[in-house]
Amino acid sequence: MAFVALGEPEYPRRLQMIDDAPPLLAVRGKTAALRLPAVAVVGARNASAAGLRFAERLARDLGAAGFAIVSGLARGIDAASHRASLDSGTIAVLAGGHDHIYPREHAELADAILAQGALVSEMPFGHEPRARDFPRRNRLISGLCAGIVVVEAAKRSGSLITARFALEQGREVFAVPGSPLDPRAEGTNDLIKQGATLVTDAADVIAVLRPILGKPVEFRAEEPEAPAPGAEPDAGERARIVALLGPTPVPIDDLVRLSGSSPAIVRVVLLELELAGRLERHGGALVSLL
Amino acid sequence: MAFVALGEPEYPRRLQMIDDAPPLLAVRGKTAALRLPAVAVVGARNASAAGLRFAERLARDLGAAGFAIVSGLARGIDAASHRASLDSGTIAVLAGGHDHIYPREHAELADAILAQGALVSEMPFGHEPRARDFPRRNRLISGLCAGIVVVEAAKRSGSLITARFALEQGREVFAVPGSPLDPRAEGTNDLIKQGATLVTDAADVIAVLRPILGKPVEFRAEEPEAPAPGAEPDAGERARIVALLGPTPVPIDDLVRLSGSSPAIVRVVLLELELAGRLERHGGALVSLL
Repeated sequence: MAFVALGEPEYPRRLQMIDDAPPLLAVRGKTAALRLPAVAVVGARNASAAGLRFAERLARDLGAAGFAIVSGLARGIDAASHRASLDSGTIAVLAGGHDHIYPREHAELADAILAQGALVSEMPFGHEPRARDFPRRNRLISGLCAGIVVVEAAKRSGSLITARFALEQGREVFAVPGSPLDPRAEGTNDLIKQGATLVTDAADVIAVLRPILGKPVEFRAEEPEAPAPGAEPDAGERARIVALLGPTPVPIDDLVRLSGSSPAIVRVVLLELELAGRLERHGGALVSLL
Repeated sequence: MAFVALGEPEYPRRLQMIDDAPPLLAVRGKTAALRLPAVAVVGARNASAAGLRFAERLARDLGAAGFAIVSGLARGIDAASHRASLDSGTIAVLAGGHDHIYPREHAELADAILAQGALVSEMPFGHEPRARDFPRRNRLISGLCAGIVVVEAAKRSGSLITARFALEQGREVFAVPGSPLDPRAEGTNDLIKQGATLVTDAADVIAVLRPILGKPVEFRAEEPEAPAPGAEPDAGERARIVALLGPTPVPIDDLVRLSGSSPAIVRVVLLELELAGRLERHGGALVSLL
């Protein structure tokens, strides 16, 4: 367990800007995860299968783009978002002390988060979370992030409280649309009516957040920008990478992951396509075929 | 069967403003339905059950609010919208002549429409609709209406063609959101990303269209294009009309209605502004201040 006090260099940069930043954070896991650019993915506990699947896809793609995924360890959308970003780094903000994981059945998930991510609480050890601690906790979820994505939310749900905090804190609010006949989409459709950015894809989030963050969100710092000397894609690799591309912008990270080729090889193939006038580069390390 | 020629008083007021208004419309049913404020409800042929149910609810509620529901008599969303507004008045725009109802299984629906609504075609009797007649027909669907609602639409679908016509004609575009995992919502979610108004309820449509419709003051065809001799705006009229103008293109009809001045006076003021280099004219009898 590490304790980080407001004003210390390890204190999360965005969180220290909010009005009621907690004076002390108790952190378990990798404190380095708190230095990644972060985006919250939150939503209904009684989520639909489609909502869960979408949350997984979104969290995985945002994780691959270099974001830490922040959520509340709740059932449904929260848990799906944490699980899909265990490898890239995910942060769960607790409503109680570190010895009171809620819900209890997520104790294992909480342990798994520690490997690449972190558990964060402003509450003392021994504090059992009460109902009123959860909305209070939600201000930290939004406060840690550049933006929050609400995946499914009924009217008057906790996720909308997080969205309100996000607005008050000047964070970007994103919402995933759904059928007007689905009560779990009422809250998200309302958010879009009120000006939240409609999200159907990680690229929608990255396009808005990347200019805010300034510093990219792309390849890991130790990776050289130029292709490694002698990196030469074979015909099969080239075909696989081209097949992954289309008119919809996709993160270069996804190409690396889905093609199974090295980042250097992917960069060489993209450079070839670019020189042939077949590639368009977008913000956020996104590329598409022309 | 009635024939209505461009320039005749019975010709639909909004349709006469579009660039390629048909010179002659063949109308069956109640021509009075063509004088109601109208909104199009269109969408996928292979609609989901939720899409069909939503289209019915929307068409019924908009019909109850006094709108004629315009659509294309296709399977799916179109048919559901017509059926739900048979009593309040619905207008089907045909791609072929009146003796070539398409699809054939909608012959009964077409007959039912005649009681309170109308079937409209710009094509001669005997014309069998070809594939290319449908997109052409779609400009009349949007042209007859103050706005169009797209309920479900895949990418590159006919409903998006109608939405494009609507934008070109200065009509309001509304779209019904859906899950990002539903291919039938790709087109509508895209429309919302591009600025279409998100619709979960008839009230969303009415809120936007009611101020546009107001009381229908028509630019009657018998009115001379040139200002009537002696039409001379006074300072108050001139100020009122200029105050109604701004950088956003507005229909000249609205200026007439909202200013309370005669069409001739409005035309004089617009001409003065134009000569002073302060007015821009757009397609569809729209004007804006420079």
